[in-house]
Amino acid sequence: MTTPETAHGIGMAVIGAGYWGPNLVRNISGSAACDLRWVCDLDVSRARGAVGRYSTIGVTDDIEDVLRDPNVQAVAVATPAHTHAEVALACLEAGKHVLVEKPLAWTVAEGEKLVDAAADLGLVLMCDHTYCYTPAVQEIRRLVREGEVGDIHYVDSVRINLGLLQPDIDVFWDLAPHDLAILDVVLPAQSRPVAVSAQGADPLGTGFACVGYLTLRLEGGGVAHTHVNWLSPTKIRTTIIGGSERMVVWDDLNPSQRLCLYDKGVDIVDGSSSESAEVRRDRTVSYRSGDLSAPTLSEREALSAVIEEFVASIREGRAPLTDGRAGLRVLQILEAATVSMRQDGATIPLVHGVEHHH
Amino acid sequence: MTTPETAHGIGMAVIGAGYWGPNLVRNISGSAACDLRWVCDLDVSRARGAVGRYSTIGVTDDIEDVLRDPNVQAVAVATPAHTHAEVALACLEAGKHVLVEKPLAWTVAEGEKLVDAAADLGLVLMCDHTYCYTPAVQEIRRLVREGEVGDIHYVDSVRINLGLLQPDIDVFWDLAPHDLAILDVVLPAQSRPVAVSAQGADPLGTGFACVGYLTLRLEGGGVAHTHVNWLSPTKIRTTIIGGSERMVVWDDLNPSQRLCLYDKGVDIVDGSSSESAEVRRDRTVSYRSGDLSAPTLSEREALSAVIEEFVASIREGRAPLTDGRAGLRVLQILEAATVSMRQDGATIPLVHGVEHHH
Amino acid sequence: MTTPETAHGIGMAVIGAGYWGPNLVRNISGSAACDLRWVCDLDVSRARGAVGRYSTIGVTDDIEDVLRDPNVQAVAVATPAHTHAEVALACLEAGKHVLVEKPLAWTVAEGEKLVDAAADLGLVLMCDHTYCYTPAVQEIRRLVREGEVGDIHYVDSVRINLGLLQPDIDVFWDLAPHDLAILDVVLPAQSRPVAVSAQGADPLGTGFACVGYLTLRLEGGGVAHTHVNWLSPTKIRTTIIGGSERMVVWDDLNPSQRLCLYDKGVDIVDGSSSESAEVRRDRTVSYRSGDLSAPTLSEREALSAVIEEFVASIREGRAPLTDGRAGLRVLQILEAATVSMRQDGATIPLVHGVEHHH
Amino acid sequence: MTTPETAHGIGMAVIGAGYWGPNLVRNISGSAACDLRWVCDLDVSRARGAVGRYSTIGVTDDIEDVLRDPNVQAVAVATPAHTHAEVALACLEAGKHVLVEKPLAWTVAEGEKLVDAAADLGLVLMCDHTYCYTPAVQEIRRLVREGEVGDIHYVDSVRINLGLLQPDIDVFWDLAPHDLAILDVVLPAQSRPVAVSAQGADPLGTGFACVGYLTLRLEGGGVAHTHVNWLSPTKIRTTIIGGSERMVVWDDLNPSQRLCLYDKGVDIVDGSSSESAEVRRDRTVSYRSGDLSAPTLSEREALSAVIEEFVASIREGRAPLTDGRAGLRVLQILEAATVSMRQDGATIPLVHGVEHHH
Repeated sequence: MTTPETAHGIGMAVIGAGYWGPNLVRNISGSAACDLRWVCDLDVSRARGAVGRYSTIGVTDDIEDVLRDPNVQAVAVATPAHTHAEVALACLEAGKHVLVEKPLAWTVAEGEKLVDAAADLGLVLMCDHTYCYTPAVQEIRRLVREGEVGDIHYVDSVRINLGLLQPDIDVFWDLAPHDLAILDVVLPAQSRPVAVSAQGADPLGTGFACVGYLTLRLEGGGVAHTHVNWLSPTKIRTTIIGGSERMVVWDDLNPSQRLCLYDKGVDIVDGSSSESAEVRRDRTVSYRSGDLSAPTLSEREALSAVIEEFVASIREGRAPLTDGRAGLRVLQILEAATVSMRQDGATIPLVHGVEHHH
Repeated sequence: MTTPETAHGIGMAVIGAGYWGPNLVRNISGSAACDLRWVCDLDVSRARGAVGRYSTIGVTDDIEDVLRDPNVQAVAVATPAHTHAEVALACLEAGKHVLVEKPLAWTVAEGEKLVDAAADLGLVLMCDHTYCYTPAVQEIRRLVREGEVGDIHYVDSVRINLGLLQPDIDVFWDLAPHDLAILDVVLPAQSRPVAVSAQGADPLGTGFACVGYLTLRLEGGGVAHTHVNWLSPTKIRTTIIGGSERMVVWDDLNPSQRLCLYDKGVDIVDGSSSESAEVRRDRTVSYRSGDLSAPTLSEREALSAVIEEFVASIREGRAPLTDGRAGLRVLQILEAATVSMRQDGATIPLVHGVEHHH
Repeated sequence: MTTPETAHGIGMAVIGAGYWGPNLVRNISGSAACDLRWVCDLDVSRARGAVGRYSTIGVTDDIEDVLRDPNVQAVAVATPAHTHAEVALACLEAGKHVLVEKPLAWTVAEGEKLVDAAADLGLVLMCDHTYCYTPAVQEIRRLVREGEVGDIHYVDSVRINLGLLQPDIDVFWDLAPHDLAILDVVLPAQSRPVAVSAQGADPLGTGFACVGYLTLRLEGGGVAHTHVNWLSPTKIRTTIIGGSERMVVWDDLNPSQRLCLYDKGVDIVDGSSSESAEVRRDRTVSYRSGDLSAPTLSEREALSAVIEEFVASIREGRAPLTDGRAGLRVLQILEAATVSMRQDGATIPLVHGVEHHH
Repeated sequence: MTTPETAHGIGMAVIGAGYWGPNLVRNISGSAACDLRWVCDLDVSRARGAVGRYSTIGVTDDIEDVLRDPNVQAVAVATPAHTHAEVALACLEAGKHVLVEKPLAWTVAEGEKLVDAAADLGLVLMCDHTYCYTPAVQEIRRLVREGEVGDIHYVDSVRINLGLLQPDIDVFWDLAPHDLAILDVVLPAQSRPVAVSAQGADPLGTGFACVGYLTLRLEGGGVAHTHVNWLSPTKIRTTIIGGSERMVVWDDLNPSQRLCLYDKGVDIVDGSSSESAEVRRDRTVSYRSGDLSAPTLSEREALSAVIEEFVASIREGRAPLTDGRAGLRVLQILEAATVSMRQDGATIPLVHGVEHHH
């Protein structure tokens, strides 16, 4: 049964019905702007489970059913990470716009192939950096971009819990993409990451780090640090942003107060660059100990905003907020982190080849 | 007015009545085992303020009054850090046992001088690592030492708040000594720190880092990491210890539940060292997701336990739990951290010359 | 497409697709033991919205479609409260088992009619007391029933938030049914409510109390108290149970620690009833200040357990845990509370006509 | 040794060195405006313990030493509650200003005697309602008095913990005085308590309630409710104030956020008194769901502010914020609560004979 609005909806398919796929199915089928035609998984019973027992949505284990369906204009890919590039490329070459679950690909090289292919074919390539579409991150981005936070002094994020050890990746590749994707949309141009240092520990001797610390040097002297951990008994999802004007604390596990803004800060008379550190140091540092405020945030599901942005970028023929390039920048940092870790935490400079579109 | 018990109390003096001195005065004068005779400060009005307007305790601005008083057997030094060595040495040479506020001294070289002098003169040299005497740390030490935690996988501590920028030291030297002193009493011999890496940021351009991250490599493959920060809008004092048997979370700002023990953990069949990581990785990792328990802790003030240990070590002629050597080990790590920071976070090996007495 | 298992599923329908209906639809359609055939609402677009745009489930605005469908063996009723009795009765008379959203009915008289009808027709009448099926309440029930809590000294529950003022009921009828339903399954026979006192406030002058306090006197000298409030800026969902052996704190908004058990308690040598209070009072009261433990609870959605119990009671021809009688006992307390409130909080005795089946 | 300022300090004494006395000694001896001359206790060793082993303050077990000392102008009384009246009266009759620990006296009759005596003798009689001098309560009083909270809809306070059972009083007389004293300074004249209802439970059969619920009817239709409990495993100190303009949440155990202000509220077009409730009910109720803000509060110890107010009222010859009359109003409510409890929670009207001085 096709209602008028779905007739104008964008024909879609979801490939991969494992952990994340069902969430895509739920949100896409719930969007009036989409017309979900297929759910595809090599294990068709998983595809069937994702749509439920009362659904009219087609299920298949053959990706060709999706690729050759002229009514499918866009595909959401949620297959295992090491297959992202292959599947996404097939979709692009079949003329479909593509939304890829994070990480964009298994390597920077693969990611670049996807970005180039999408550019050549004039198709939308979007990376599903879900957290970037939460009301909290959207508000943080606004606060930073509109200058309410001031210069970025530091960003400290903690993403730890008792996680399932991944058989083929370390904790950086599993958890850090979230924080790196958030930094990518939040940090202003003058605070871009310029170097990476990573410290990982493998106390279980599995061959992959399950505890990791990532330090990003930012232009302008700031620092961003992320603690990712699979062996923490408590779940923590906190990000603190220290700015020259205000400070922000985002506790994603505290629904009644996810975002706190502090008027606290440090005032220091800004000296001319010619002035020496010694001179500046001798000046009195004055403290502002101000009030706390917590804005009300909508409780909208981020993934529905992801779908909305995907649809909008297709309709408007523009790059989405988290396009392939954003996914690529995240991959570059992850690869640099891997190199740093192998060199006992040596600081690895980042080459900036991937410009921003926003 | 001398009551019988104070007649047998150890004659004491406090030198330095600034920030920490008054706490020493309050706890020493409250101890029946001590007979507090002098409070000395170059600014005698501060000494007077520390004893209050109704006190019989002598106040002076002349350290000689303390040194030549034959009834003074022990001195607590709470002067500025860069004067610790000079003042403590003078006390030792005058034949007084010495309790020094953290850090033991301004440099490792100075600290070694103090340790050697105390050894030569057969006097007690104790470092006031207050946190080590909190009921929480005492319990953590017991849990680790008695094997209830198992092998140490990682220790992650966060010590951040909106702090006063120090004019002459960075955030590592100001805050990290607490965490390093705690690690020193908690970690078992097979998990000693072997290398240090430090990342600091000076976004205010004061010439000193006010945001810092310290990574300690532990024998046996574990890691200890500390985040110290003067620019955090929220105060956090949390330490998580991940072990092979249990995990411990210490939140010092949650009096109703300072210590949480988790039966959560990861089981992995231990492989012979000959076995390759690949083989171990392929084995199934089994999870134990267990219950939480929070032991009741006494609310005793740690500093009173410090005085008790100082007195006991003097009476028993033994090294205190946090002796000069412990203070020296902390200084060694701090100096290595400074070197690492100057080398962009390079990993600096630790030379272990200072053996433990416990 | 009917899979083998659904062929044996119980044919079901959901009547009412407003606030709660969609949750019933989601859980019933997700249950392999059910075969959801209809969603009915006077506003058919709401019914359609509840099943989504890709569903094979029938939608209708005519209850007759449901009643005359021989394949519908059971109906879940989620219509406005004042219509529960009429709709549920129609379903029973059509030979369908019925699950009614709380409260069972608008009045005790109506509720009794439903209970009698179900009994006469040999059909299952279940009240959807959802909270009773949460892992937390199930565990509390076990702890109390198995004597781990000991004698019930008090139960204090707080259920407050900034709620929508209801146009036709007060805050007691809106929120208290949850707490009363929970007490009904948790309290042992020897601690049944025997009298009710209610204090309500209508500071907005709407004609209905929006702040309410309910006190239940329990057999054996205990007390149960509930604070319900539509005007609270913060959302609180906490229940404390004080027992002679242990104490339990249930904070439903703290997923990492929903349930806390305390070994804390008061020991008092039990005196023979002949003994006077004065004598008992003089005895020393000894305190046990013990440890805290928090059991791990499953995160299963309660409503799926409601459906499971509904199905099981139909298959086994037995009364469900929260049968019509449970709903009736809740209604009796609510009506007594209304009487008490009109009499300035006078204590109203409860007549116990409705026996328990468990 | 008398410094110039103490020469002009008010001569003081503390009578009673049990639980609260030492806090008075510490704060009075720390105040430059006071000259503490005596600490008196029937057990002189407790008095000695309160001043410490290095003090010049006089200690005695003979109240006459205090009463006949012409340099003692004011006395702080911290003896057992049932002796407050006798001791305070003796001090007043000796011409001393008096600060009495809460409750003012054992009965209203005794309290009236004290108030009258102080009035006749032209002396200051102050009740140590310590909480009223916390920065949090001072700020709440300001917010309410300056109209920022609007009309008081309700005040809900919870004061529970695992407390020591008192041998001679119930939980109302032990804990509720705090909440009643706070209400006394916070509530504006148009929201005075007009009636009391109390529900107590004595599940331990000690002859005294250890769980209590107190409901105060306020002028203007508001309500104030207090939950006091000696048998709670968790300590809770929370007060919620619902107003027509703003809502306030005071969590005294959360130092980082003791006070929260919510712009949340309910808007309802105010109807003329002639208008019926039915009409008002039918109007749309509009919700404002606003932001949260938490003002920074000083961490000053309340008791030092109590001493400051006591000294100021003596010097200025005025009634202190919490004068004898305030203590009397608290006693009147406590006695009414006792009556209500004996009558199964019947609502007892309050006779208002005691006018406010502020």
